[in-house]
Formats: sequence, C-alpha cells, structure tokens
Amino acid sequence: MDYQQLFSHATQTMKSSLIRELVAQTKSIPDLISFAGGFPAPATFPKHILSDLYYSVVNEEGYEVLQYGASEGDSQLKDELIAWEGYSKLNHANYLVTVGATNGIYYYAKALLDKGDVVLCEAPTFLGTIVALDALGAEVRGIAMDEEGISLVEMEKTIGEIHKAGKKVKFLYTIPDFQNPSGISMSLERRKGLLELCLRHGIQILEDNPYSRLRFTGKALPTLYNLAYGDMENHSLVTEIVSFSKILGPGMRFAFVKGDPAIIDKMGSWQQKVNVTPDCVTERVVARFLEKGFMDPHIKTICEYYKPYMQKMLTELDKTMPSGISWTKPEGGIFLWMWLPELISADELFYPAKDAKVTFIPGSKFYPEQEQKFNCLRLNFSYSTLTQIETGICRLAELLKSF
Amino acid sequence: MDYQQLFSHATQTMKSSLIRELVAQTKSIPDLISFAGGFPAPATFPKHILSDLYYSVVNEEGYEVLQYGASEGDSQLKDELIAWEGYSKLNHANYLVTVGATNGIYYYAKALLDKGDVVLCEAPTFLGTIVALDALGAEVRGIAMDEEGISLVEMEKTIGEIHKAGKKVKFLYTIPDFQNPSGISMSLERRKGLLELCLRHGIQILEDNPYSRLRFTGKALPTLYNLAYGDMENHSLVTEIVSFSKILGPGMRFAFVKGDPAIIDKMGSWQQKVNVTPDCVTERVVARFLEKGFMDPHIKTICEYYKPYMQKMLTELDKTMPSGISWTKPEGGIFLWMWLPELISADELFYPAKDAKVTFIPGSKFYPEQEQKFNCLRLNFSYSTLTQIETGICRLAELLKSF
Repeated sequence: MDYQQLFSHATQTMKSSLIRELVAQTKSIPDLISFAGGFPAPATFPKHILSDLYYSVVNEEGYEVLQYGASEGDSQLKDELIAWEGYSKLNHANYLVTVGATNGIYYYAKALLDKGDVVLCEAPTFLGTIVALDALGAEVRGIAMDEEGISLVEMEKTIGEIHKAGKKVKFLYTIPDFQNPSGISMSLERRKGLLELCLRHGIQILEDNPYSRLRFTGKALPTLYNLAYGDMENHSLVTEIVSFSKILGPGMRFAFVKGDPAIIDKMGSWQQKVNVTPDCVTERVVARFLEKGFMDPHIKTICEYYKPYMQKMLTELDKTMPSGISWTKPEGGIFLWMWLPELISADELFYPAKDAKVTFIPGSKFYPEQEQKFNCLRLNFSYSTLTQIETGICRLAELLKSF
Repeated sequence: MDYQQLFSHATQTMKSSLIRELVAQTKSIPDLISFAGGFPAPATFPKHILSDLYYSVVNEEGYEVLQYGASEGDSQLKDELIAWEGYSKLNHANYLVTVGATNGIYYYAKALLDKGDVVLCEAPTFLGTIVALDALGAEVRGIAMDEEGISLVEMEKTIGEIHKAGKKVKFLYTIPDFQNPSGISMSLERRKGLLELCLRHGIQILEDNPYSRLRFTGKALPTLYNLAYGDMENHSLVTEIVSFSKILGPGMRFAFVKGDPAIIDKMGSWQQKVNVTPDCVTERVVARFLEKGFMDPHIKTICEYYKPYMQKMLTELDKTMPSGISWTKPEGGIFLWMWLPELISADELFYPAKDAKVTFIPGSKFYPEQEQKFNCLRLNFSYSTLTQIETGICRLAELLKSF
C-alpha cells in the first residue's frame, strides 16, 4: 500500500523537528558533552514527595480520579491554582488544564487560526510552536529582539506590511521570561509597550510561561497576563500558559491556561475532541502538591540548585571565549544564546564541535523559514554537571579560536 | 472584546457533545436512575494494585519517567504490549501510545483527512468520533447495521454513490466488538467480507477496540486487525486502537495504536505537535501492570463482575417491556440498544422519562447529521446497581406502556 498518496496535505508537507534529528546524530557518541537539549535536571524532580502523593491519591481517591474527569480540568485543581496564583477575581471558567504547554498552544491555535492567518512571534523562538503553527497552515512571522525583548519598532513595521498585503494578524506568541532559546527577559517598559501596541491593533497575546518561576538572581517582573489583569483591568487581551515541566518534571504531562472564559471554553471544546481530558491522576497529584504547600519551597530549592550551573556557564564563557563572540546573560531559565562573528555559521560549526565532543543547537533552527540567522547558537545549562560545563565550554572556545 | 469574530471557522461551526448537555440536565435530580453515560464501574478499577505501582514507578524510576519521554511512546511499555498481545512479527514501529483512544482517532484523522474527504462509519456509532471528524471538515457517512454488524450491501451502495459524486472514501471507522452504542458484535463472516470489500476498494480501516476484552459469555472473535495480520498477511489495511479505559480506568489517559509503520510514524508526528508525549508516569505504570502479569487475571475479574449486570438488564427487559419493542442481546461491553415502535421518538420520550426518574441517551445522537433515526435509544448497564437496573427498567417499561 502506498501510504504517501493517502496522507492529508498537512501531513505530507509537515516538518519534523530538526532538533530531534540533530540530537539523534550525537546520541551514541561517548563522552560527548551536550548543551543541546532542553531537559531539566532529574535531581530537581521531587520524586519522593510525588511518589507518596501518587500512592495516596490513587489509593484514597481512586474511584474518582480513575473515572472520566471534566474536559476543562479538575475543579479541585483549579481551586488550588487560583489560590496559589492569587488571582482572586478569576474563577474556574478562566482556567483550562491541558496535557502540557504545547497542547495548550495547539488548542489556542485551533481556536483562532484559519489557514493563511498570520501569527507573530519573537525571532528566534521555541521551535515546537513554529512547527505546530506551520502544520496548522498559519503564516509565522518573526520579530527581531534586542536585550529588552521583542522590538516594538520592528513589530509595528511588520504589522504594517501584513496589513498592506491584506492579511490579518490573529495573535502574538511570546515567551517574556527567560525566553527559549535566547534567555532574554522582556523589560517592564517593553511589556507595557507591547500590551499597548497589541491593544491598539486588536492583536491577541499568547504568553508562554514555562520559566518565569525559575529566577535565580535579580528581581521578578510581572507577567503580561498580570499587567493586563491589574493595571489595564483587561483580562481578555492575554492568554497565559503555565507549564510545570521544569518544576515537577515534563514526564507528568501537565500545564494550565488562563484567559478570557470565551476562549477558554473553545479551547476546552477542542480538548474534548483531541484528548477528552488530561490525565486525571496527574491532575489530582498536582492539586495535592499545591494544597499541601510543597510548591513554593520546592521552587526555592530548584532555583538554588540551578543557580551555580548558570553562573558556572557564564563564568567559563567569560574566561575562555575569544573576542567577537557575545552571549546573553540570563538571570534564570535554562538557556543562553550566543552570537558568533557574522561569517561563522553554527550549522557548519555543529560537525567539528561534534568531533570535539561538544554539542549545541544551531540558532537557525529557532527561526521561521526564510528568516534564519546562522551566526548564533543555543546553550543549555540545566542538564550538565559543573565539570561538564567547564570542559564543554572550553572545548567550544578552543574550536572557535581555530575556526 | 468580541471573540466570536476572532475564532477560526472550524471553531465557530463546531458542535458540542449533545450527550454532555443531556447528562448535565439530569445531574441534580435526586433518585434519578441513569442508563445514559458510558462510565465503567469504579469497583472494577484496580486501585490498590495501581497505587502501589504508581508509588514504586515514581520512587524507583522517577528520574526517568518524570523526564521527557519518546513521542511515539515508552519503549518498555511497547515491549510489554507486544508480549501481551502476542504479535510476534510486530515491533516498536508498529505501535504508538496515545492519550486515550479519542486521541488516537484524532491523530489518525489528522494523518489522512483533507477537508471534504469522506469517512464511513456504522450508523449508529460513537458520537465522539462523529464530532471530531466533523470538526476536522470530513464528510461522515453512516452505513446501516443488522444483527451481524455493518451491512456490506449498504456499504457497497454508499461507496458507489460517493464515487459517482466524484469523492474519495479515505477510511472506514468501525467498532466490531460490543459496538457503542448498539452492543452489536460483527460476525466472523461479516468481518472477513468487510476486509475483502475494503481491500478491493482501497479503503483503510480504523478499528476502535475499547470493549473486545469485556466478553462475559459466548466465544471471542478475532479482531479485524488480527484477521488482516494472520489470514490475509496484510498488516497495513487495518489500524487498531485499543483503550484500557474500561479495564484500568478512563482517568488514566492511555490507549495504544497498532498499524503500518508508515501511518504510525505520521500519527507520532502529530503527537509531537499536539501533546509532545503521553503521560510518561502513566505509561510506565501500565507497563509494570502488564509485566507483573496483573492484566489477564484482572480482565477475568471485571468480566465476572459485569456479567450479572448485563444479564439483569436483559432479564428485566424480557420481563417488563411491552410488545413492539426490541433490543440487542450483547455478550459483553457496557451498552445495549433498544428499538421503539416507529412513531415513538426517544428524543421526546427523554423528558417524561426524566420526570419518571430514569434516563438514557436518545438514539438520534449517535447518527451523522441528516441520517438520524429517532425510534431508538442506548442503555448502559455498567454504572448502576442491580436494584437500580430492576427499578429503572421497570420505570421505563411503565412509561412506554402509557406512551
């Protein structure tokens, strides 16, 4: 049977994750030091607390949590999320629980996008989102960033071009805190400016928030949702997706979405068709984790855990990198971004680096098609030992000196 | 903000589950006896075994199962599934693990369907599938059933009409065992005839299998996948989705799909975009449940548990129903189907039945649009006590005598 001709158009043309292929290429190399993935450190998983909670939830509440649950999410969990986040004006209709953040992004896109609609995002941005939006037939346009985050000047310019072409911008996808892949956090002024700009143009904002609670130094900034909720008293402009993948562990497929009840309702309708519900056991375990007060001390612990790894990478970069190379200086998250001299392509650097037993993800992979930049790369600092960071950065610096 | 105009076309036009609305209407009625839902009996959930497994999996394998897993599913789980099912010629590339059976149906549809493509199904069939296919822009055409399952004569006729209209049938969706909603199991001869017909017309088969292992009496029949694999030596015609929702509990979102590696691969690509992976903790718990040999004795136990409930409903129907009313006599599963005299609409019967404190799902809800039949209804026997079955069927019979 020739399946190729049977597949839908979207399936025939969809792209696979190039990152996956790159990581697969390096999987079996012994002593390889990898700054490529985006894995959290297993040592940060609260497995002893979680194993106890899984036991008691299934043992004591099994008749309920092993049964079909609500498509919009467990109501006990929503109570805990509202209490934990402190949004006292919100209620269950503002919250949706999903099978991870990517799943929330997918429902949001399904709720809003017709084929050919334009979505704006930071360039570079999270590859998973680009690939998913692309598979849904959206036109993804990247907006350049500076050290304060997405450039509003560039964004105005791009919106103008899109309107001139007779097209509509449906929403902006943004990761304001410790952005993947750049590590950049949007400044407070930029956040306010962005909200004003989006409100003026009627552009909805999808705020992806996997990292804001992973702040190791510096002062926390309000999320876009928080600003819209508070200062603007406009709940409906921003939909925020919060992931616990870097907090509890990504194997528990869990995230939650907050937004206007109209859009949350439609996203819930898609959940009914796509997954019926998230895993109800996992939902209740997260609820009990919050209820018993484990969350805030646990977040404090993992921030203390990660801080030396980030600082080690920044110190080693300072010590070893030749001139002409720069990098972002994040205060949290799990990534930083490096700019190479204009003529060096990280796509080409990847292969000799692999031979030198150090890997990263070439920056071009994080741009929408036709917008790639090649003299850049992403480094992850959450999944290596301190010694590996020292040795790996040294290997990379030696290679760059000779390149 | 007026969201309505922001939503995608598919979102603006999608239907919600009418069953949900009907069930919601009766939720707060005291002493109501409900044969409406499709919930398994909580007493069948192996919660003590599962709570122990959750504990040990997270405690002992937490660093692995709380980490990101493979989009195509846990390889240890696949080993166990292959061993349990006994398909020795199959390997990991034939299996995909999904977030429940509905999720598997969604990926299959995304892999194959372009807008306007035709899908055939039994009429009546599982409402969740109709609604999901409809939201993806497919044209769903129902094929009448008799006591041996889907009518091949009707199917040939419908295929002819579709071809005449210049359209393409992409696949048939079927539930051969203890079908939802009818309770009908396809005869062996019909299964063989169906495979021959589909092969001849180049129509792929999506076999939904949530109930085949819930056989309480009579002799088990091979699944369509099994026949294609064995007799026909044609692995690729049938893709089978197996759910454990009625075996372990639907709150654990888990199902697996078996089929040709080409289609499994594309379904896995959609999983990457929609959910990244299923819940990895749940996957490993299911793997250990199989590995430790709990599955077969557990299935035996739940079949013994359910058998008296099915028999009680059949006995009470025999005892109480007036003439002119008939029903299917399943040998397993959780549903049976009732035909009323031509002039009685179950949609109208629903309201006086609610007043008489007994509910069911009107049969019309299980048909593709424009194909509804109204003189029929679905009864569930897995979620009531024996006394409730006796009283509820009696209430329904009294009502029908007076209708």
